[in-house]
Amino acid sequence: MNKTNKKCVIVLSGGMDSTLCMAIAKDLGYQLAALHLNYGQLTEKREEKAFLDICEFYDVEEKIIVDTSFFKQIGGSGLTDNNVTIMDAELDNHTIPNTYVPFRNGNILAIAASWAEVIGAEAIFIGAVQQDSSGYPDCRKEFFDEFEKAINTGTKPETRINIITPIINFNKGDIVRRSKELGSPLHLTWSCYRNSDTACGTCDSCALRLRGFQQEGFEDPIPYLVRPEYAK
Amino acid sequence: MNKTNKKCVIVLSGGMDSTLCMAIAKDLGYQLAALHLNYGQLTEKREEKAFLDICEFYDVEEKIIVDTSFFKQIGGSGLTDNNVTIMDAELDNHTIPNTYVPFRNGNILAIAASWAEVIGAEAIFIGAVQQDSSGYPDCRKEFFDEFEKAINTGTKPETRINIITPIINFNKGDIVRRSKELGSPLHLTWSCYRNSDTACGTCDSCALRLRGFQQEGFEDPIPYLVRPEYAK
Repeated sequence: MNKTNKKCVIVLSGGMDSTLCMAIAKDLGYQLAALHLNYGQLTEKREEKAFLDICEFYDVEEKIIVDTSFFKQIGGSGLTDNNVTIMDAELDNHTIPNTYVPFRNGNILAIAASWAEVIGAEAIFIGAVQQDSSGYPDCRKEFFDEFEKAINTGTKPETRINIITPIINFNKGDIVRRSKELGSPLHLTWSCYRNSDTACGTCDSCALRLRGFQQEGFEDPIPYLVRPEYAK
Repeated sequence: MNKTNKKCVIVLSGGMDSTLCMAIAKDLGYQLAALHLNYGQLTEKREEKAFLDICEFYDVEEKIIVDTSFFKQIGGSGLTDNNVTIMDAELDNHTIPNTYVPFRNGNILAIAASWAEVIGAEAIFIGAVQQDSSGYPDCRKEFFDEFEKAINTGTKPETRINIITPIINFNKGDIVRRSKELGSPLHLTWSCYRNSDTACGTCDSCALRLRGFQQEGFEDPIPYLVRPEYAK
């Protein structure tokens, strides 16, 4: 595979998916710059720790943590609005769940684009997963394609930024397998929406993650309160 | 003209342009919701006061002020980076000036879209001006068209949000004239990039504003340190 020496911005939440994106970008030869967002989510501090641990693992010096707590002001989501309860996972229910933050990826990509233009990055890596994404409209390939056009229309003429979604067609099993192959530091990642010490095992995010490990026959290295069987 | 009773989000900086957008939306019959952004600019508090005064003038109850100081973190702009000097205006120089915040309108529209989806607004009014906009790439009609597509691809299927740029083809003279016609509260607005008590009269924003008043033969009601002649 041809290696690049271009710089990229990686949106790194500290979860398994975005960490795999970092492993992929590193494998392609990119110079890594990492962007993390705090937005008043319940597990904010835990995710920030995962971000820092993963940056240290990959020797990433160019990194920023951005406060986007306006998501909490805007509300309308179980991740940021304390009046909305985070429901247990129903993996076969394909309606949009109440953990939806409206147009969250639009906001994330806009910030990433601003930073990319300033630091001269030519790509933005984002770990969106279309099939396994709980039905978020802004996790679909067609959204990323539209947003890439908007970025390149709205930045300086000489700026050219590609949005790269390397795991968009992966399921969580693919993600676990590829993470293992590339040596992604799964033990440093955090996915649970509810807890910061021991993952709950029953929120949407835990359920999808555990199912991925179960499908591949691997043990998830992080601690869980319960580990229900999700794989069929 | 047919009146609507739809709700819209107005991006209201507190300057003359966005205030005219509010006057236009009001005139069209829209139910008004106002969004203001603080981003660590030198005149942050003064602009916030203008926003609140204008909301009071128009009896706007639905309003939010959002902190986007990540612009300052990301840097690269004279408006937010204290290491960059705000230059005096050169109105005939059409290069991109150093007050450019990369992809600022992309970020503003992403926030507006999130809020619009939550409160059920069907339009976003933004007071961008293409010809008189100091060459910002994200002030052009083609950018707003692209971004509108991205919003509607990245939000819920039932969500439909139009980006309305009612003054995109105005010059500052048109803006002053139309503001007068609609009774926009020009005396409550603030445009200066440098000062918060008495406008400097010489930054890009003051120069464009003063030229508009001079072209139309009106006196600008706000105080200035100096009022150079800009109109030719």
